[in-house]
Amino acid sequence: MNVALDAMGGDNAPVAEVAGAVAAARAYRIEVLLVGRAAEIRAELDRHETRGLKLDIVEADTVIDMHEPDPARAVRQKQDSSLVRSFALVQNGTAQACVSAGNTGAFMAAALFELKRIPGVERPAIAIVMPTPTGRVLLLDIGANVDCKPEYLAQFGLMGAVYLEHLFGLANPRVGLLSIGEEATKGNQLVQQTFPLLKAMPINFIGNVEGRDLFNGLADVVVCDGFVGNVSLKLIEGLASTISSMLREELTANPVRKLLAAGLRGAFGGLRRRMDYAEYGGAPLLGVNGVCIVAHGRSSPYAMQHALRVAKESVEHHVLDRLRESVAGASPKSQVLSPES
Amino acid sequence: MNVALDAMGGDNAPVAEVAGAVAAARAYRIEVLLVGRAAEIRAELDRHETRGLKLDIVEADTVIDMHEPDPARAVRQKQDSSLVRSFALVQNGTAQACVSAGNTGAFMAAALFELKRIPGVERPAIAIVMPTPTGRVLLLDIGANVDCKPEYLAQFGLMGAVYLEHLFGLANPRVGLLSIGEEATKGNQLVQQTFPLLKAMPINFIGNVEGRDLFNGLADVVVCDGFVGNVSLKLIEGLASTISSMLREELTANPVRKLLAAGLRGAFGGLRRRMDYAEYGGAPLLGVNGVCIVAHGRSSPYAMQHALRVAKESVEHHVLDRLRESVAGASPKSQVLSPES
Repeated sequence: MNVALDAMGGDNAPVAEVAGAVAAARAYRIEVLLVGRAAEIRAELDRHETRGLKLDIVEADTVIDMHEPDPARAVRQKQDSSLVRSFALVQNGTAQACVSAGNTGAFMAAALFELKRIPGVERPAIAIVMPTPTGRVLLLDIGANVDCKPEYLAQFGLMGAVYLEHLFGLANPRVGLLSIGEEATKGNQLVQQTFPLLKAMPINFIGNVEGRDLFNGLADVVVCDGFVGNVSLKLIEGLASTISSMLREELTANPVRKLLAAGLRGAFGGLRRRMDYAEYGGAPLLGVNGVCIVAHGRSSPYAMQHALRVAKESVEHHVLDRLRESVAGASPKSQVLSPES
Repeated sequence: MNVALDAMGGDNAPVAEVAGAVAAARAYRIEVLLVGRAAEIRAELDRHETRGLKLDIVEADTVIDMHEPDPARAVRQKQDSSLVRSFALVQNGTAQACVSAGNTGAFMAAALFELKRIPGVERPAIAIVMPTPTGRVLLLDIGANVDCKPEYLAQFGLMGAVYLEHLFGLANPRVGLLSIGEEATKGNQLVQQTFPLLKAMPINFIGNVEGRDLFNGLADVVVCDGFVGNVSLKLIEGLASTISSMLREELTANPVRKLLAAGLRGAFGGLRRRMDYAEYGGAPLLGVNGVCIVAHGRSSPYAMQHALRVAKESVEHHVLDRLRESVAGASPKSQVLSPES
């Protein structure tokens, strides 16, 4: 299987990309197409042992900047960029999936431009799998659509359930709607109007969930608009890192504490591993005609490796076909007879 | 100074309320009017040493339930409830402020019913002060208004700045707008339309901030709609408690870890204290004609004590007068000449 990797995308490109590609090629037998400036990629590859691994370079001269103010225009104008070329490789069938840690807005634009929406999909959504003490939760949308209609959110719930069910083999995942109270009447207008639509979807909708329920195992999939999802995600990142820093300060406040804390390295390492998003491997864009995974801009080689793994597994588990079938079966048109419509 | 306390409001009422009132009366010389079922309150008071303290009971027969489905109707129908009576004591001048840990929706309804909005205020907002590693941040609205207009948010920024400036003596507080990117063009429609209005306010508006910036000291006041604020607040509570539980699990996983962790009790206690919201003392409802503080439903006696302290300090620092002046000076009418309008 070929996976196209935008080698110039992230903050640490191409270092993290190449290292992640080498690790993924070795661990999961993926054929990685490294897309970007050939000389830079080759120089980076030379620092790794790559014998027997399937790693190819696809030349792409330009790069879409992480802070590009108009991502959609950049995609139209930079057809030779590493990002657009990566999607083009999926579009023409050379690769079965693509991964980038680059500009998320440009990622979205390139995905829509090259791959188009799955028929019946209102809006594609970016979903992220986050670790919880008892397992994991899929949160979507985390930023693709900042202003949503109820129909979009209802479909996010469907796509999230299908993704989790087929990628993780989790039967009948519980889907919750992020709100500010359990009752169906709680929430803003968008959420209140979404509630009956989610109820009418062929999924295991458990009703509204609250911010605290993201971590307590109540739901497997949590649905929200891209503004709320993005604020939430960055809040989680920020708070987790704040608590870590404060803990470190307390544990190094004097020599005795330092000594005792050194003995507890295993415990703190365990906590860090349980909170580490890296091995959940990037966030799929659900709803376009292709498997594409957006990785965090600050992805480590380990995170890139797992983003490539998730891309491979999405292809192997035919997630795209399952999404197409589900959306076709639960499109608004097929629901004209539901009591809520 | 008299502060009316809804003694029947919270999940631990009247135990936490009475204990908090006793502590506050002793520590800050507040005269607390305990509003609720006299027999229950008296029985609870008898368990404390109250000599020399100014604690009075105001009889109120009924209680508005925490899970009341229609809070506004409950307020209209239960004029003899401990909550409505507490507000009535402020309205008729018997008390200078009131505090309740009861139903937030009913709190809002009673505040509007008894005290009315400050002239020029579009919508009152609930603000909460949260600890950060380097100080504190005021987040508003955390749930009073789930669907907002840009004008509401702009005024929240003004009211938050005035509150922080006068309650904490913090000159020129930095006000940020919660969004999903720093640039003025980032965010949903509501946020994009709010940006120029906040810019035109007579405050130190620093632009958009992101979820992670709640904790890094970038802003003193963070503005959002009540839906996003409430989701965020519960997310923070949930994640902080999740991380604590996971840390506890790791530290008690074996006898050696338990022993070492016992030696680090001071460090963990320090972290807990730095993350403790209790001494920030409840959340003021800003924008009504009276000082009123809503405390967390699960408030401890310590949290109730500090909610009473914040009520007292709000009165002493004339926060209400400052809010009235600022809103009058920055009302939409006075800004017809600003370039954004």
